[in-house]
Amino acid sequence: MARAGWSHEELVAGVLAGDRRALARAISLVEDGAAQAEELVRAVYPRTGGAASIGVTGPPGVGKSSLLSALVGEVRAQGRTVGVLSVDPSSPFSRGALLGDRIRLADHFLDPDVYIRSMGTRGHLGGLAEATLQALLLVDASGKDVVFLETVGTGQSEVEVIGIADLVLLVLMPGSGDSVQALKAGIMEIPDVIVVNKMDHPGAQTMLQEVRSIVALDPERERRPRILLTDALRGEGVSELWEALEARRRELEERGELASRRVRNLSGEVETLAVARLRERVQAAIADDPRVRAALRGVTRREVDPLSAVSLVVSTLTGGDGT
Amino acid sequence: MARAGWSHEELVAGVLAGDRRALARAISLVEDGAAQAEELVRAVYPRTGGAASIGVTGPPGVGKSSLLSALVGEVRAQGRTVGVLSVDPSSPFSRGALLGDRIRLADHFLDPDVYIRSMGTRGHLGGLAEATLQALLLVDASGKDVVFLETVGTGQSEVEVIGIADLVLLVLMPGSGDSVQALKAGIMEIPDVIVVNKMDHPGAQTMLQEVRSIVALDPERERRPRILLTDALRGEGVSELWEALEARRRELEERGELASRRVRNLSGEVETLAVARLRERVQAAIADDPRVRAALRGVTRREVDPLSAVSLVVSTLTGGDGT
Repeated sequence: MARAGWSHEELVAGVLAGDRRALARAISLVEDGAAQAEELVRAVYPRTGGAASIGVTGPPGVGKSSLLSALVGEVRAQGRTVGVLSVDPSSPFSRGALLGDRIRLADHFLDPDVYIRSMGTRGHLGGLAEATLQALLLVDASGKDVVFLETVGTGQSEVEVIGIADLVLLVLMPGSGDSVQALKAGIMEIPDVIVVNKMDHPGAQTMLQEVRSIVALDPERERRPRILLTDALRGEGVSELWEALEARRRELEERGELASRRVRNLSGEVETLAVARLRERVQAAIADDPRVRAALRGVTRREVDPLSAVSLVVSTLTGGDGT
Repeated sequence: MARAGWSHEELVAGVLAGDRRALARAISLVEDGAAQAEELVRAVYPRTGGAASIGVTGPPGVGKSSLLSALVGEVRAQGRTVGVLSVDPSSPFSRGALLGDRIRLADHFLDPDVYIRSMGTRGHLGGLAEATLQALLLVDASGKDVVFLETVGTGQSEVEVIGIADLVLLVLMPGSGDSVQALKAGIMEIPDVIVVNKMDHPGAQTMLQEVRSIVALDPERERRPRILLTDALRGEGVSELWEALEARRRELEERGELASRRVRNLSGEVETLAVARLRERVQAAIADDPRVRAALRGVTRREVDPLSAVSLVVSTLTGGDGT
């Protein structure tokens, strides 16, 4: 039963009609982890898949929000509608630090064809991945042509959060030395497009050359990302960036890769969310199951080895032998 | 049955006696994912817990290996024995990039009281976390006084790999702008000690001040890490770093926090490893289970929503309703 005056049917109809208030209410249900959110997503799912989704990631402070604001302007100039979902993986204590700059998107708050929403963690990353997918599907079903899925950070967990997007854009700035090293060392996945923002900074050209020389090492030429310079605050390079993203999308479509990537992303997403739910069960078993708790006490006393405790947890959940 | 001439009993006895060849063979069994590795760890587990373990993390290229080499020298100068486990989370394709600099540890290869071992991924991160724990327990059981557990990167997944260590040292260098921003934004966990390596670099002092001002914001004064400058190649600041690590350990011991941290780490490790094993089962179900495969085809055709497929995967593994 939906709260605050919306019935399930009204919410479904509202989301599909692109009603902002219905969409906002639906995403709040998702954030609350309400059971009816899942029913909503189930109801609208056949109407999803129309949106072009773009994951935007990068370290904090590189200007992702300003860049998103400028990109939204580009998309709107083409007469297309846009959704922006900003996902904040930081702890509740420091929430303000990351969401404070969402204000840069305020230029678009009054545009009825732009829907902007920030989502924080409530608990752990697994729950966030599930909420992000649900919110993306709702925005997609509401008829937005383009959806940006933004998250901060460049690790594996962050990539999981935006792994459902059709394309991935990595935003760096001069001084993003760690990310460049991570690209070089192969511990960061190569995105579709890389942008070096704050192009007027003295180190911008050096960073551009450095990133270029790294991606040039990839023997699979077709996979090499385009790399561009932007200044999001002054709007420089943003049209070129949007064109690069569109070109990349066309390229993937022409090679039939967009469809296969979507299949792979959906299957990866099902894996991620199934593992997240199982993690919750593992945590519950560790907190509450008397046999598991006894085994953990044994581990602490060096009487039971940790791998036997792991096997017990797994067999408690699955009924098998836990190996 | 142990291969290559070692029986289970010989391996257990050899590891416990601190025999290098036995330890090397045992860790190879761990890397191969052999069933007998688990038996070995079970057999030696009651003899673990004596080693002081220190996790060392940081972006690639900051000089972690040189610093480790210098720290090993400090520990040896005190007459204590050392193990170094370097864990490489990168893909097999770029392996060389990260392990190449292990050569800096070569100064210690001939010292019988130093055991150095690199471990790569074979498959996925879950397997690596399990192998890392097993290897750490084996080195611990072999009687090393101090064990360094090194990994590259600063994301959540990397922290999981070294999460079992008693203390965590974060290594940065001038130019590590992304990591500083991540600390500031609260998306990187605060370690016990932070070192800014390459102290002669013009940006070193600035970075030191920046990191200091970030950690000073933490209201829990006792948790604030010490922050030091080093030049690992020239050995500068390394004695002070080792003293800071020892002081931190004494502090935790005096407050009774080391014991509670070990309990928490072990329980967290059991969670991580149980989830990793369940992930393997999820992947197997997605690859092989006919009902799951049918559901995934339905997801791709927008006939079955992804969350229903997730519930099916979870219920297939656990026999429950999957929510």
